[in-house]
Amino acid sequence: MKKLSFKKGEIIFKNGEPASHIYLVISGEVGLFFSTDPKNPYITIRENETFGEMGVIDNELRQSRSSCLSDCEVVQIEREIFLKKYESSDTLVKALIKSLSVRLREANKKLMRSR
Amino acid sequence: MKKLSFKKGEIIFKNGEPASHIYLVISGEVGLFFSTDPKNPYITIRENETFGEMGVIDNELRQSRSSCLSDCEVVQIEREIFLKKYESSDTLVKALIKSLSVRLREANKKLMRSR
Repeated sequence: MKKLSFKKGEIIFKNGEPASHIYLVISGEVGLFFSTDPKNPYITIRENETFGEMGVIDNELRQSRSSCLSDCEVVQIEREIFLKKYESSDTLVKALIKSLSVRLREANKKLMRSR
Repeated sequence: MKKLSFKKGEIIFKNGEPASHIYLVISGEVGLFFSTDPKNPYITIRENETFGEMGVIDNELRQSRSSCLSDCEVVQIEREIFLKKYESSDTLVKALIKSLSVRLREANKKLMRSR
């Protein structure tokens, strides 16, 4: 787990990369971009919000690019550390995370197709 | 926390109701419907998946209707019991649930507008 600083415009991860970390935004704003619309973020991640978790939970490759919309500080958490926290969570909490993740991935696919 | 049985076509909750429970599907399929498209579920919830959590986490009214697409068995969990499990989770796990929930709500709003 480490704190990283990025300048506005820097890329944190790209489509197709293995999902090796999840991220928590400490300051600044990070945009997530579909490959079909590389200029407009489909979502903006703000302070105290996480991103990059879906690929980690589902063990899939990155399906979007993350770039800094401003100078940013983020905490980068290794896949294994996150999965340990996830696995030791309450059964209902785990089912919830899995459901939200699946539904968000499905919603994103529909949104990507509608662009 | 109690187990409930529903017949195909029965409604579990409606748009605009207070979000007093979350649900875990034990068997069968539940559809979530936007008011703008009451015939086609925008998502189908299956065995071991949860629904109804977004209103509970964000303390907002129901923004969709849930109806059984087949005969169903679900576990109904009171808001307070769920929130206790949520609050006692790891900080990162909590931030993650909050983020997924906010992003799913935003994605759903965009999808609803696109119908």
